[in-house]
Amino acid sequence: MKNFEEKLSQYVGLVEKNLRQYNVCTEENRSQRTLIDAMNYSLEAGGKRIRPALVYGFCEALGGDIKKAHAPACAIEMIHTFSLIHDDLPCMDNDDFRRGKPSCHKAFGEAQAVLAGDALAILPFGIIADDTNLSPEQKVRIISALAKASGRDGMIGGQVIDMEIEGRQDVDEELLREMCMSKTGQLIAVSCVMGCVCADASDTIIGIAVEYGFKLGLAFQITDDILDVEGNPDELGKPVGSDEQENKVTFVTLFGVEGAKQLAKSITAEAMECLNKIENSGFIRELTEILLNRKK
Amino acid sequence: MKNFEEKLSQYVGLVEKNLRQYNVCTEENRSQRTLIDAMNYSLEAGGKRIRPALVYGFCEALGGDIKKAHAPACAIEMIHTFSLIHDDLPCMDNDDFRRGKPSCHKAFGEAQAVLAGDALAILPFGIIADDTNLSPEQKVRIISALAKASGRDGMIGGQVIDMEIEGRQDVDEELLREMCMSKTGQLIAVSCVMGCVCADASDTIIGIAVEYGFKLGLAFQITDDILDVEGNPDELGKPVGSDEQENKVTFVTLFGVEGAKQLAKSITAEAMECLNKIENSGFIRELTEILLNRKK
Repeated sequence: MKNFEEKLSQYVGLVEKNLRQYNVCTEENRSQRTLIDAMNYSLEAGGKRIRPALVYGFCEALGGDIKKAHAPACAIEMIHTFSLIHDDLPCMDNDDFRRGKPSCHKAFGEAQAVLAGDALAILPFGIIADDTNLSPEQKVRIISALAKASGRDGMIGGQVIDMEIEGRQDVDEELLREMCMSKTGQLIAVSCVMGCVCADASDTIIGIAVEYGFKLGLAFQITDDILDVEGNPDELGKPVGSDEQENKVTFVTLFGVEGAKQLAKSITAEAMECLNKIENSGFIRELTEILLNRKK
Repeated sequence: MKNFEEKLSQYVGLVEKNLRQYNVCTEENRSQRTLIDAMNYSLEAGGKRIRPALVYGFCEALGGDIKKAHAPACAIEMIHTFSLIHDDLPCMDNDDFRRGKPSCHKAFGEAQAVLAGDALAILPFGIIADDTNLSPEQKVRIISALAKASGRDGMIGGQVIDMEIEGRQDVDEELLREMCMSKTGQLIAVSCVMGCVCADASDTIIGIAVEYGFKLGLAFQITDDILDVEGNPDELGKPVGSDEQENKVTFVTLFGVEGAKQLAKSITAEAMECLNKIENSGFIRELTEILLNRKK
C-alpha cells in the first residue's frame, strides 16, 4: 500500500507541475491573463487526477518511458476540466459549486467560463503535437483516440444523451449504460489507451485496456450515483440528493442502493479480470479498488 | 476571371461535400442525431468558405496535391463555425441571427449550441489525425499550428481581448490591431500555413504566408467594420449599426468610413506584395481583391 500511495502522489505531483507549466502566463500572452486565470482556477480546483494516473499507470506497467506520458496525462485532465466547466453552465446543469468552490462561471462570469472551457478543449491537441518525447506516429494515434473519445461520438455525445433522457422515467439499464459508456467511460478508456500507446503496446493489449477502461468507467459512475444518495456533502464538496431532486433515473433508482453496490462490485471484479492480461498491473489494481470504495 | 470563379466554386464544392461526409449521422451514432443536426445546421448556414479556399489555394499554388488539403480545409471551417456558434450565445454577443437565419441556440436551444460548438472544436483534430493523404509529420505540424491559432494564444485569446475592451473608449489603433490579429487574423493566417504544409513548402514560404494571412485578416476586419456602417442588411443577413449601438471602437470610429477604406486598401496592397514571392498565386490574388470589395 505504501508503494501505491507513493506512486499515486508521484503521478499527481507530475501532472500538477506540468499543468502549471503548460498554462503559464508569460510576457507574450499577458493580454490573456484573465482567461489563463479562469483555466487554472478550474484546473487547480482539487481534481482527483484519476485519468492522468491511468495514463501514467498503463505507460509504466507496459514498460514505457514515463516522460512520454506527460503530455497525454495533462491533455486528458484538461479535456475533463473543460467538460466540467461547460457542464456547470446555467444553460447546462446550472451548478454553482464544484468540489466545494464556486464553479468557473460563478467566479469569472459566464462568457469567460465558456471561453476557458473552449481553450481547455483545444490546448490538449497542441500540447501533444508539440511534445518532444513522443514520435509523430504516437502523437497521431493519441490525438485520433483523444478526439474520438472527447467529441461527438464520445463524451460530448454522452452529454447529449444525458440531456435528452433527463426527466424521462422509462430509462432502462441498457440506455443508462450507453449514456455512461459515452459520458464517463470514454475519457477513462482513452486514458488507458494513451498510456498503452506511450509504451508502444500491441493492439491486443490496447483492446484489453479499452475493455478495462469502460468497466472502470461504469463502476465509477455507479459509485457516483451511490454517493449522491449516501455520501457526505462536506467530503464530496457538493450537496447530495441532486439526482433525486432532478428526478433522474440512476443505477440507484434502478437497483436500490444495495443493488447498485453489488453491481459496482461485480463490474469492478470484471475490470480486475481484464488486468490479469496486463503485466505489472499492481498500481492499476490498487487504483481500481480504491475507486470502488471512495467517499468522494 | 472565369478561371478564378471556376476554381473558387470547385473549392467550395469540395469543402461542402467533405463537411457533410465528416459529419454524417450513421447507425452507430444515431443517438447523437440532434447534436449532428445542430452542427450541420451551422456548418451549412451559408458561410463564404474563405478559409478553406485559402487552404486549397496555397496548397495548389505551391504544387501540393489537392487531396492533402481536404482535411485541413474542413477542419478550419469547423473551427470557424464553432467560434460563431459560441460567439452568438446569450452570455457572449447574444445574437439571434447569423447569415439571415436564426443562430444555433435559437434553433436548437442553448445547451445543444454549447455542445455543438464544443464538438466542432474537437472534431477537426480527429479528422486531421485520421486523414489518409497527409504524412504523420504533416499532421503533427498542421495540428500544432491549428491548435495555436484557434486557442488561448489565438482566436479565443482575441475574443477575450474583444470582451475586455468592450465599451472602453480609449482603445487605440495598436490595441484594435492586436485584437484583430488574434480574433480574425489567426484563423486566416493558419489557413494559409496549412495549405503550405500540405505542399511541403519551405519555412521561408510559410513565413511569407503568415505575413500575408495576417494582412488579409486585418483588411477583412476593417471591411467588416465598414459594412457594419454602410452595408445592406439584406445582403449581409444581419442588421447593420450594431457596432455603434454597442459603443464599440472600430476602424471606422478611429478613422471614419473613408479613412478605413483607405486603410483596407493599403493593407490589401501590402498583402498583395507578399504574394509576389509566391509562385502561381493568381487565384489567391483574385480572392484577396474580391474580399476587399465584398458587399457581405
